[in-house]
Amino acid sequence: MEDCKREAKHIFLAKFKEGVTEEQIEECIKRLISLVDLFPSLKAFNWGKEMGIANFHQGFTHVFESTFESAEGLAGFMSHPHHHDYANFLLPQLEKFVAFDFQPTKVQP
Amino acid sequence: MEDCKREAKHIFLAKFKEGVTEEQIEECIKRLISLVDLFPSLKAFNWGKEMGIANFHQGFTHVFESTFESAEGLAGFMSHPHHHDYANFLLPQLEKFVAFDFQPTKVQP
Repeated sequence: MEDCKREAKHIFLAKFKEGVTEEQIEECIKRLISLVDLFPSLKAFNWGKEMGIANFHQGFTHVFESTFESAEGLAGFMSHPHHHDYANFLLPQLEKFVAFDFQPTKVQP
Repeated sequence: MEDCKREAKHIFLAKFKEGVTEEQIEECIKRLISLVDLFPSLKAFNWGKEMGIANFHQGFTHVFESTFESAEGLAGFMSHPHHHDYANFLLPQLEKFVAFDFQPTKVQP
């Protein structure tokens, strides 16, 4: 955590298990959204489905992307019991996932 | 490409091969940044290093995150010769990568 004052992002790529329904996936997203209000450091939350433009997604189907106002805020979210409960609900429904945390260096086009 | 008018994002997670130096990685980032001005549809570009808060990154070390004003803009970038040249330069330096394209659904905290 080199720079605790800088914005920090958490990218979570998920591949749901075969047989997990659209309704179950929606429930996963809904429960995650319900956490958003509980963490004041969480500034933005996006989710989306793989679009299929290219074929380098290694089977990942969904992304959840959270932006925190600081590395401290992100670390606080990750270690919070609400997040652990959510992980215990979500992870059994996934075939695989990868989570990546970083402090973005922004390039202005 | 359900909604061509909506913003589209490209997330690229990379693990550089052992032996690739910091200087070589910086050159990869510099060359990618030099592409940014060439694509008017590219609205924002961020990159960052894995922070090590949690241990679910599966060895990925870097992320490049690009935001395009539309799915069409993203598809145009992916299929452009400049991007192919860049991929030919970058990919031999990577042990693995995953690329994920999506149109974000934004949740306001």
